[in-house]
Amino acid sequence: MTAFALDPRLLSACHPLGELEHCHLLLMDNAALPWFILVPETGATELCDLDPDTHSHLFSAAAAVGRFVRSEFTVDKLNVATLGNLVPQMHLHVIGRRRDDYCWPGGPWGVDHSAPYDAAALTQMRALVDARLEVR
Amino acid sequence: MTAFALDPRLLSACHPLGELEHCHLLLMDNAALPWFILVPETGATELCDLDPDTHSHLFSAAAAVGRFVRSEFTVDKLNVATLGNLVPQMHLHVIGRRRDDYCWPGGPWGVDHSAPYDAAALTQMRALVDARLEVR
Repeated sequence: MTAFALDPRLLSACHPLGELEHCHLLLMDNAALPWFILVPETGATELCDLDPDTHSHLFSAAAAVGRFVRSEFTVDKLNVATLGNLVPQMHLHVIGRRRDDYCWPGGPWGVDHSAPYDAAALTQMRALVDARLEVR
Repeated sequence: MTAFALDPRLLSACHPLGELEHCHLLLMDNAALPWFILVPETGATELCDLDPDTHSHLFSAAAAVGRFVRSEFTVDKLNVATLGNLVPQMHLHVIGRRRDDYCWPGGPWGVDHSAPYDAAALTQMRALVDARLEVR
């Protein structure tokens, strides 16, 4: 059995935050949006191929992250999506959107926007996630 | 109790195809992609607020549509997403994507592209859906 490894393209675009409901929780390195990514440990690349337990864990984690984003940030809508056009490894985006954000009302995928977290903002986000979500 | 009504913006952008797993199945009027939309009868606008039965029906339908798209069309990846930035009524996109489609690798939301179905193509799609999916 091969150990699961996060796709290096996800790791290079995100900050790992821990594990939530058997999924890896990542923070997209884009401080312009509260943008989280959940990665279950599966070889399946399509939602319709997930086994029921993995589906259940993934969407339970997505619900927790969605509620967290809604309660801790100013957002008008949550966007939840799995695309995988560039990185096929199964990953689910949970993104808080605002009417005045840089890519409203479209999706943020494929929209070039650079707003990396600085060290202080990243530390603050990690503390908030640790305080409010059951991450390990 | 108020009867459920599909948002008129969804109806104007899509062709209704019937019901699947207690969800309305719509075909986005964009013949450039096999693009389906599922609408459960709920007042919730966020995935994290769906009751478990509605979640289960919605993703069971999404899995059926995903497998249908993968088997009947040439696609490289499925995209499954709920945004709702313009139309808050809960709806889930299931879209077959190709490396050579007009908006690969980004999402198709907010990308202006007009390719309405003609009558013959729509009739063909309806027949395919009726033959392969358990729509009512």
